[in-house]
Amino acid sequence: MTEYKIALVGFGGVNRGLAQLIAERNAEWKASLGFSIKIVGVTDLFLGSIVAKDGLDAKQLVAMPVEKGVFAQLPGGTAEAFNETVIRHSGADMIAEATFTNPVDGEPATTFCRWALESGIHVVTTNKGPVALHGAELKDLARRHGVAFEYEGSVMSGTPVIRLARQALPGVGIQGFEGILNGTSNYVLTRMKDGLSFNDAVAQAQQLGYAEADPTADVEGFDVRLKVVILANELLNARLNVSDVACSGISSISPEDIAQASANDASWKLIGSASREVDGSVRASVEARLLPNSHPLAGISGATNAVSFNTALLGNVTVSGPGAGRIETAFALLSDIIAIHTTHGKQ
Amino acid sequence: MTEYKIALVGFGGVNRGLAQLIAERNAEWKASLGFSIKIVGVTDLFLGSIVAKDGLDAKQLVAMPVEKGVFAQLPGGTAEAFNETVIRHSGADMIAEATFTNPVDGEPATTFCRWALESGIHVVTTNKGPVALHGAELKDLARRHGVAFEYEGSVMSGTPVIRLARQALPGVGIQGFEGILNGTSNYVLTRMKDGLSFNDAVAQAQQLGYAEADPTADVEGFDVRLKVVILANELLNARLNVSDVACSGISSISPEDIAQASANDASWKLIGSASREVDGSVRASVEARLLPNSHPLAGISGATNAVSFNTALLGNVTVSGPGAGRIETAFALLSDIIAIHTTHGKQ
Repeated sequence: MTEYKIALVGFGGVNRGLAQLIAERNAEWKASLGFSIKIVGVTDLFLGSIVAKDGLDAKQLVAMPVEKGVFAQLPGGTAEAFNETVIRHSGADMIAEATFTNPVDGEPATTFCRWALESGIHVVTTNKGPVALHGAELKDLARRHGVAFEYEGSVMSGTPVIRLARQALPGVGIQGFEGILNGTSNYVLTRMKDGLSFNDAVAQAQQLGYAEADPTADVEGFDVRLKVVILANELLNARLNVSDVACSGISSISPEDIAQASANDASWKLIGSASREVDGSVRASVEARLLPNSHPLAGISGATNAVSFNTALLGNVTVSGPGAGRIETAFALLSDIIAIHTTHGKQ
Repeated sequence: MTEYKIALVGFGGVNRGLAQLIAERNAEWKASLGFSIKIVGVTDLFLGSIVAKDGLDAKQLVAMPVEKGVFAQLPGGTAEAFNETVIRHSGADMIAEATFTNPVDGEPATTFCRWALESGIHVVTTNKGPVALHGAELKDLARRHGVAFEYEGSVMSGTPVIRLARQALPGVGIQGFEGILNGTSNYVLTRMKDGLSFNDAVAQAQQLGYAEADPTADVEGFDVRLKVVILANELLNARLNVSDVACSGISSISPEDIAQASANDASWKLIGSASREVDGSVRASVEARLLPNSHPLAGISGATNAVSFNTALLGNVTVSGPGAGRIETAFALLSDIIAIHTTHGKQ
């Protein structure tokens, strides 16, 4: 029986969700997945850090209050985040990197990923920053050190879009994709269709916890742009940077635009897309588009996300599911670990 | 470089489509997939059979007219379908079984699959009959002989529903599924929403080539029932037989029912579904259901198929795409061959 030793880097909602899954399901995974997981280290800039080579009690970790330096209360724990020690020296086989997304330079998450990979430690992450901004470098680093760099959760949380394309669609000829990749903006557009103004819809999204206090990244398309870079580079073998992707959002769409679309059996959607051009280059954008209601993405409502692949042999294939959520995103990390077990696992 | 030797069993639209893909893409596959495919035998009850251990010209095969016994015109060919010879003695590594679906006993396709598997030859098939009626026996036979029995195309043609569940969703806790699994009946319901009567909508589906001269299997749910058995046994580890699945169709739905549904922001759909009950048993059915338009399957229109998985960790995840088509179904066979290459390939 394989037991993976994991270090959790960042202990917000997502890695707390992973710890909860480990607490509840480790015994079942031994039978159903062929492995179990032991948490040997946790580090978080706010909570502190702890290393325990014999393993930490996942249930106890989940129950830790969100208080500055609280890990100092654990035997062997400290209020300081000794990130490098936890990543390099906890004896972990893999780290689950789930710190905040920094859209400017991907730090400090990218450094955390580098530390792990160059130490021969697998990385699973839900963080868009390192993948969108430094994906090629990190994939190459992983390859050179014979370990995995997996990031299913960086797009559409646990809904398997990257793994679907990689494992179920090789040979199909993916020529491009269109996606609804941000739940907040899609929720806002859905509520505007119900008659709300843009500002009222944003306020409601904030009340429901979908939107941040500053909703700019969601409604102006910046969040989607990172995901488009990740998907284009993954699915179309592109080498796009964020600055290659033209980006506009939904804040200029008026209630009148929405009503007129409905009258014409169409819907406004914030679409992140990329396609391979005749000359072989890849063109990508983020923009509000008016879709006929017969389009596979027109009916995706509320906070749901979806990607429609445009393929040579199957035409359009579309996958939809949650695009956010604590447990949903933690499942992405689990699915990355399962993929590592399949390809690198000690049999 | 691996070269797979394949025998095509049945040479209707689907295997002709596979031959076309081989003719057009073999060179590209060497680079992109790591293998190429050589056709070493073909057999078809109407066209005859041929064995050629050095390989047949795929392009020439595709161009053969659909005439009784036409394979006799090929050097070494015969007007008779020597099925067992082609399957067992053509030197094939695998057969692509794409004969007609027999919903009563799965024959002769099931016998063809048995011959191959017990000879240590992989089977890829798009045929619902053997999988729905004898799936457990054939999977066991494949396991005992160390070969693969793959059948992605038996449900939703090449749209990857089985492979999505197997490879991208382990650990997610699939509790059930609902699917629109028959394009003809969904097309009929979509046209009825546009105002056509049931009979006129069926006639239009027949004109477009979606529906058979006898549309019973499509509109009464019998086709969907076979697919529900396949998916329930695959996704929920059920051991259902066709007779375990209650089945009704759409022929009793009136234009008034459709209009009333539209007025209530809902849609009638023919839904094949299965779910795990509290006692661990699996309950499955095929029936017309009134779905609110917010349901992930309500917006699936025309001949498109879709399956929505109900999962413990992600809620609903839905995949939609083509459910029929010559090349689309041939792609399913290719995706099965890719899966065999990944798991059984000579590296």
